[in-house]
Amino acid sequence: MQKENLKVATIGGGSSYTPELVEGFIKRYDEFPLTELWLVDIEEGKEKLEIVGDLAKRMVQKAGLPINVHLTLNRREALKNADFVTTQFRVGGLDARAKDERIPLKYGVIGQETNGPGGLFKGLRTIPVILEVTKEMEELCPDAWLINFTNPAGMVTEAVLRYSNIDRVVGLCNVPIGMEMGVAKLLDVDHSRIRIDFAGLNHMVYGLDVYLDGVSVKEEVIRKLSDPENISFVKNIDGMGWQPEFIQALNALTCPYHMYYYKSKEMLDKAIDSSKKEGTRAEVVQQLEKELFELYKDKDLDIKPPQLEERGGAYYSDAAVRLITSIYTDKRDIQPVNTMNRGAIASIPDDSAIETSCVITKDGPIPLAVGDLPVAARGLVQQIKSFERISAEAAVTGDYNKAVLALTINPLTPSDVIAKQIVDEMMEAHEEYLSQFFKKEKAHLK
Amino acid sequence: MQKENLKVATIGGGSSYTPELVEGFIKRYDEFPLTELWLVDIEEGKEKLEIVGDLAKRMVQKAGLPINVHLTLNRREALKNADFVTTQFRVGGLDARAKDERIPLKYGVIGQETNGPGGLFKGLRTIPVILEVTKEMEELCPDAWLINFTNPAGMVTEAVLRYSNIDRVVGLCNVPIGMEMGVAKLLDVDHSRIRIDFAGLNHMVYGLDVYLDGVSVKEEVIRKLSDPENISFVKNIDGMGWQPEFIQALNALTCPYHMYYYKSKEMLDKAIDSSKKEGTRAEVVQQLEKELFELYKDKDLDIKPPQLEERGGAYYSDAAVRLITSIYTDKRDIQPVNTMNRGAIASIPDDSAIETSCVITKDGPIPLAVGDLPVAARGLVQQIKSFERISAEAAVTGDYNKAVLALTINPLTPSDVIAKQIVDEMMEAHEEYLSQFFKKEKAHLK
Amino acid sequence: MQKENLKVATIGGGSSYTPELVEGFIKRYDEFPLTELWLVDIEEGKEKLEIVGDLAKRMVQKAGLPINVHLTLNRREALKNADFVTTQFRVGGLDARAKDERIPLKYGVIGQETNGPGGLFKGLRTIPVILEVTKEMEELCPDAWLINFTNPAGMVTEAVLRYSNIDRVVGLCNVPIGMEMGVAKLLDVDHSRIRIDFAGLNHMVYGLDVYLDGVSVKEEVIRKLSDPENISFVKNIDGMGWQPEFIQALNALTCPYHMYYYKSKEMLDKAIDSSKKEGTRAEVVQQLEKELFELYKDKDLDIKPPQLEERGGAYYSDAAVRLITSIYTDKRDIQPVNTMNRGAIASIPDDSAIETSCVITKDGPIPLAVGDLPVAARGLVQQIKSFERISAEAAVTGDYNKAVLALTINPLTPSDVIAKQIVDEMMEAHEEYLSQFFKKEKAHLK
Amino acid sequence: MQKENLKVATIGGGSSYTPELVEGFIKRYDEFPLTELWLVDIEEGKEKLEIVGDLAKRMVQKAGLPINVHLTLNRREALKNADFVTTQFRVGGLDARAKDERIPLKYGVIGQETNGPGGLFKGLRTIPVILEVTKEMEELCPDAWLINFTNPAGMVTEAVLRYSNIDRVVGLCNVPIGMEMGVAKLLDVDHSRIRIDFAGLNHMVYGLDVYLDGVSVKEEVIRKLSDPENISFVKNIDGMGWQPEFIQALNALTCPYHMYYYKSKEMLDKAIDSSKKEGTRAEVVQQLEKELFELYKDKDLDIKPPQLEERGGAYYSDAAVRLITSIYTDKRDIQPVNTMNRGAIASIPDDSAIETSCVITKDGPIPLAVGDLPVAARGLVQQIKSFERISAEAAVTGDYNKAVLALTINPLTPSDVIAKQIVDEMMEAHEEYLSQFFKKEKAHLK
Repeated sequence: MQKENLKVATIGGGSSYTPELVEGFIKRYDEFPLTELWLVDIEEGKEKLEIVGDLAKRMVQKAGLPINVHLTLNRREALKNADFVTTQFRVGGLDARAKDERIPLKYGVIGQETNGPGGLFKGLRTIPVILEVTKEMEELCPDAWLINFTNPAGMVTEAVLRYSNIDRVVGLCNVPIGMEMGVAKLLDVDHSRIRIDFAGLNHMVYGLDVYLDGVSVKEEVIRKLSDPENISFVKNIDGMGWQPEFIQALNALTCPYHMYYYKSKEMLDKAIDSSKKEGTRAEVVQQLEKELFELYKDKDLDIKPPQLEERGGAYYSDAAVRLITSIYTDKRDIQPVNTMNRGAIASIPDDSAIETSCVITKDGPIPLAVGDLPVAARGLVQQIKSFERISAEAAVTGDYNKAVLALTINPLTPSDVIAKQIVDEMMEAHEEYLSQFFKKEKAHLK
Repeated sequence: MQKENLKVATIGGGSSYTPELVEGFIKRYDEFPLTELWLVDIEEGKEKLEIVGDLAKRMVQKAGLPINVHLTLNRREALKNADFVTTQFRVGGLDARAKDERIPLKYGVIGQETNGPGGLFKGLRTIPVILEVTKEMEELCPDAWLINFTNPAGMVTEAVLRYSNIDRVVGLCNVPIGMEMGVAKLLDVDHSRIRIDFAGLNHMVYGLDVYLDGVSVKEEVIRKLSDPENISFVKNIDGMGWQPEFIQALNALTCPYHMYYYKSKEMLDKAIDSSKKEGTRAEVVQQLEKELFELYKDKDLDIKPPQLEERGGAYYSDAAVRLITSIYTDKRDIQPVNTMNRGAIASIPDDSAIETSCVITKDGPIPLAVGDLPVAARGLVQQIKSFERISAEAAVTGDYNKAVLALTINPLTPSDVIAKQIVDEMMEAHEEYLSQFFKKEKAHLK
Repeated sequence: MQKENLKVATIGGGSSYTPELVEGFIKRYDEFPLTELWLVDIEEGKEKLEIVGDLAKRMVQKAGLPINVHLTLNRREALKNADFVTTQFRVGGLDARAKDERIPLKYGVIGQETNGPGGLFKGLRTIPVILEVTKEMEELCPDAWLINFTNPAGMVTEAVLRYSNIDRVVGLCNVPIGMEMGVAKLLDVDHSRIRIDFAGLNHMVYGLDVYLDGVSVKEEVIRKLSDPENISFVKNIDGMGWQPEFIQALNALTCPYHMYYYKSKEMLDKAIDSSKKEGTRAEVVQQLEKELFELYKDKDLDIKPPQLEERGGAYYSDAAVRLITSIYTDKRDIQPVNTMNRGAIASIPDDSAIETSCVITKDGPIPLAVGDLPVAARGLVQQIKSFERISAEAAVTGDYNKAVLALTINPLTPSDVIAKQIVDEMMEAHEEYLSQFFKKEKAHLK
Repeated sequence: MQKENLKVATIGGGSSYTPELVEGFIKRYDEFPLTELWLVDIEEGKEKLEIVGDLAKRMVQKAGLPINVHLTLNRREALKNADFVTTQFRVGGLDARAKDERIPLKYGVIGQETNGPGGLFKGLRTIPVILEVTKEMEELCPDAWLINFTNPAGMVTEAVLRYSNIDRVVGLCNVPIGMEMGVAKLLDVDHSRIRIDFAGLNHMVYGLDVYLDGVSVKEEVIRKLSDPENISFVKNIDGMGWQPEFIQALNALTCPYHMYYYKSKEMLDKAIDSSKKEGTRAEVVQQLEKELFELYKDKDLDIKPPQLEERGGAYYSDAAVRLITSIYTDKRDIQPVNTMNRGAIASIPDDSAIETSCVITKDGPIPLAVGDLPVAARGLVQQIKSFERISAEAAVTGDYNKAVLALTINPLTPSDVIAKQIVDEMMEAHEEYLSQFFKKEKAHLK
């Protein structure tokens, strides 16, 4: 397939991540000759869109490539005839995230913006918007692929798979690529020589085996992983190291988010501590963003500034454009993405989203057969999948009881009473983004 | 089948529960004409065995039934040609249970004698003994049924199913019958009019539907269940009431042990508080037992004393003898027991133990097909199954790392670090009953 | 549940089987105190309805029971407030069945009124009618149970489960009860002492184990089954005896219809031979029916005449009223019926109909968990299930290509070419009952 | 991985196919720098081995490559330190195949050397030998990959997966590549532009979708496939064209061997006819082989002679060396091979062999998740899998009854009586290669 016009629409184009993405498109231009990049944002994001959009234009110009960068507040215009739609929007912005983190902490629960209460509320805010986007896609670009980066990526992909009419959706996360990078660093070898068999869910993905030049080095990696000095894989989660006995018996690679479940106490203590000192992650990022946008304003800047890596989204650019390119070129290489299970992982429903190693074809990702997960991993994965399914259902139906249920069964929540308290306070805090609940459920929240 | 001689051997016959069991055999004598009841215990239990054995003899005599009660310390003699073997032994006695409860509390973890760290260590102590019993059964009574009451009943049944050569094993618990009794009381009707569709695991069983005279009353029961006044189903766990939103969205009956998972904080606080005031449950029971055995010594006592019900094993007698009778008479009625899954619950391995409604035949229980559990229940059930499987594996292999892994993945454990600390202290405390670990693993425990 | 009024509606009430059913209601009156029996038929069946209806009234009168027998051509009136609806109608009557048998034979294919081409066309004629009935039931008796005897019972139950809004449906067949009777006769013991673990599909059901007084006698039965003298289980299929090596390695009881698959050649030869001599089964039955209705006319006859047993429906009465009574009384005994799989048999879709041992409750049958069928049985069962599913789909959609596909994948069909020839000739022969195809597909059939 | 010495051992090296394989190694030498090719055969094949081995040497010499071709009758020497072991031996040679084809025809059954009675007996002869080879491999080359071409490839792979200690086995067939070539020809495009999603079993594989340059052209291909002129995909099976209605409703690509099941009558008639005229396939091939070996003797011949393509093994060379190269280079491309299911196809046991599209890595093939097969395909696939499993079990255990069972449940067999007759006559005919049966089962065969 060689298209004359190749159009990408990026929802939430005013994000500070955009230079990452633009860099990705520039690097892979030979394989993916993008002609139009539409950055779309909402009224409130107009200023940021213009700042980062101008940087994007300067980057493209410096690269000397014929990519037209369009800035717009009109989402329908951006979607019209798009080939790929990427989403990096954040409903309610970092202010909402700060609440996602702060409120649960008051109740002794970690806010966690993906699988914890923060993730629940981010999902409740995001899913209605993503379902609006998919409706517009049906009409305006029915053959386009939706590449979703918006967290909680697993829950959002689940919602699109089960509640939209769009099949062409892939959820993407930088955690797996970060794990590969981390292993490469651990072994002091180039990233390209490492391969990991991934299986699980978003932010709950395991490496079932890991290879260096095709030879399994799992044993060595696990030995090193149980050494506290080596744990730090991604920038925004400090490593604390596993108990050697635990990780050796688990006999699989963990992702950084596993610390929330296998080290809940330490992570909670740390979050409370940080929130008192440097602020929650959202508050830190708000400061970082401010600085980044100051940088972006510099008319002389025409590359992605290195400071962006502090932001935490490392490798997004690589992961995203690698995926888009493989779909476009029908490359059939193996990448870890969020897609429909189709029986690949036993005991997860066939129609649910999983994060697993897939062959990427023009028709999208096809998961490699995993069979059963290791016994020790099976329970937690199933539990998070239950949480994701019920959260998605709550987001779509506006069923307040389901929101309480979702949070109660989340392994980070200490009780149904606290779950309800958190849900109530967060419902109120985010009311403007949760109309699906407030239309009918207002009485409940008195 | 009409046997001339009908022999039951009760391992741990010196238990304070024995009068319950004897009462059960007396009540159902018409259907199950027991001729020999062998109460067997170990040297340390000799005195108790004699006290409770004498009471048993007086009870039988009063009932005017030709049941011979034998007391012995020779397990092989007791097993020889038995038709049913029941187990109610406790390795290490209540002292060990007190440690199971006290030690984890030091680390801020509830000891819980079934699914928590207490359950892990009770399993590690019990499984080697039960596997000795099954080996002797293969030789001495290969056609006998093993009816296991020893907790953690799910883990023990799992171990027998997967690591012994015995097929004829059923795990029994008084929780489901207690739930039926609780519902009957809640609705103020006779127990016989209530039926519940049970599915799940031991101490993690859900009532998927509940009927009064064959008509579903689930909605009404759930409404009442969400009322704090109605929660108290079994004597040894105080009810605290569910959040109405949670239980209504869950839309299934819970068992009392669900409070450990859906109210972990409150249960922990309560356990810490009790341990300071009246002592842990084991300590309370030790006192109760002392009083019970004083009562039992009374030569004039020839019935089960009502004080035994305080002990917490209510309905055991009924559940146990009901099960034995149905096997003996091929009654094909429906009872909730622990048995091999055989595909009844989707996503639980076929060869694993589940607790579910079964038809009881001469060839043992056949589970009714459940299909998939409700989404909200699926995760926690899978997680406890993972914990049970790995714990059983650790018990059989003496693999110390697996014990740490089992405890780390348990949802009640706050981190791998704490898991290891608890395992280490408990290994030391229970060393005399854990030779499978100390033969090879001693080095680890320095 | 004790209802004041208990109403059964029998669709196809003019059938020669009706005296069987009436006898059944009389025998079980104590448990199932029927007050109204509505026999409903179509205009063409009016005369038969009156003859058999009058016999029914005489039978009830002789029994001295207060059951009102109503005869009507108004189906809606019959369904109104019914508690149970039984179906024994035959679209197109025995003339249609004669075509089902004769036409395939011309192409060297056995007509077989259930799983072969005859079954396909009987399904195509019957399913639209049964779906009309279920629509009326939704409106007129939404709590009633549909007890379907109409063949092909598996395919019809599949269609109701998947294409109607009715949940309360059970398919019933006399084959399993006939197998029990056959085994009883083989062992020369009373039927009540025999129990069989059934699993499979309608007319493709296996006995996975068989018990006499609760002790497995499978080995003995299989030995006897491999003796040609013992094979004859049901009246309308002559036994021909299995090769001992085959049945011993299969290690399961077969049903009479297995001969169509494991003895296709002999069954075909026999069918060709019979069709030349005494006529096809339908033709023989037509003669039998004529004689039966002559008998029924006799005003002095007030019991089921023994000649009815020649007709081939032996034990229907017992099976049907036993099932109805167990539902009514919530008896929870075990009976083999056609119901939704719900995971009971692995590798059959959860929502498909299976024929298997179930506990019969007020809420209908709950299948016992089977797990995987024996390897040797798995293939054929899956194949017939594929045939049933696609046939049901063809019946509902009127998709001519699907009808050709269904017949081509049927193991009794020698090729796609012959499948199409048979479909074409049968479509034409049955055109008046297949309007779903002729509305849109007429062009195809030129 | 870059090995200094790269050794391939070919069991049955004296086969007429060997020049295909040698050509393949020459063509892909750049990627797979073979240093030693060991052609091993048995005493009876010595002459052929020398003829074809000399040709192989001349081919290598002409190509100017440093590949050492070794000829040996010592299998252990050939296996010692091999990197890949390929098998193309034929136990009993073409004489045995002629019997496999001729004997069943006497009973009106097609002999078919893979899934029919011929396949059963070829399996019974082959599996004991392959299990000897795998035992030697454990000892002499434990890291080597076994690439099995010997038919019935599905049954042989199943046997190795389940009854050997070797994991590293792949079964290979030229049918899928032939289907790709056929589609390419049908659409008149280059083979490289065609991709098919394969799923099923060996010689029972379906194309679930087919792409030209990444765009699905299934509809077009199926339309063309239903045209009788286009059906001929592989040389040794004449096309006869599907009924358009059948193939359109099936909505999947068939493989040539499907004609045995969906056109059994026509295939049988043709086989009977051919056997009378030109002889069975084995007899034709015997003549072809004679001519081929005459050609091979020509000292001036130093390429694969074009006449070999008549032989029927087209594309073997390409498929085999492509697979070996991808394993060696960890290429991770997608190829259709026979491998362990691991949950890729629902309702086939996880540990059974399937033929499906896999990613080929250094650790072997990883199947892509398929989920459920189309309903219409599911039955036949399950049935052939049952046949393969029981046949493999019969081959390993020497259980005569299982052999009768396997043949009876095969869809090509008209009855258990005929199955037994064929088994008996074939057992006698092949007695010298079936010692596993004759040691214990001789009494049966009187």
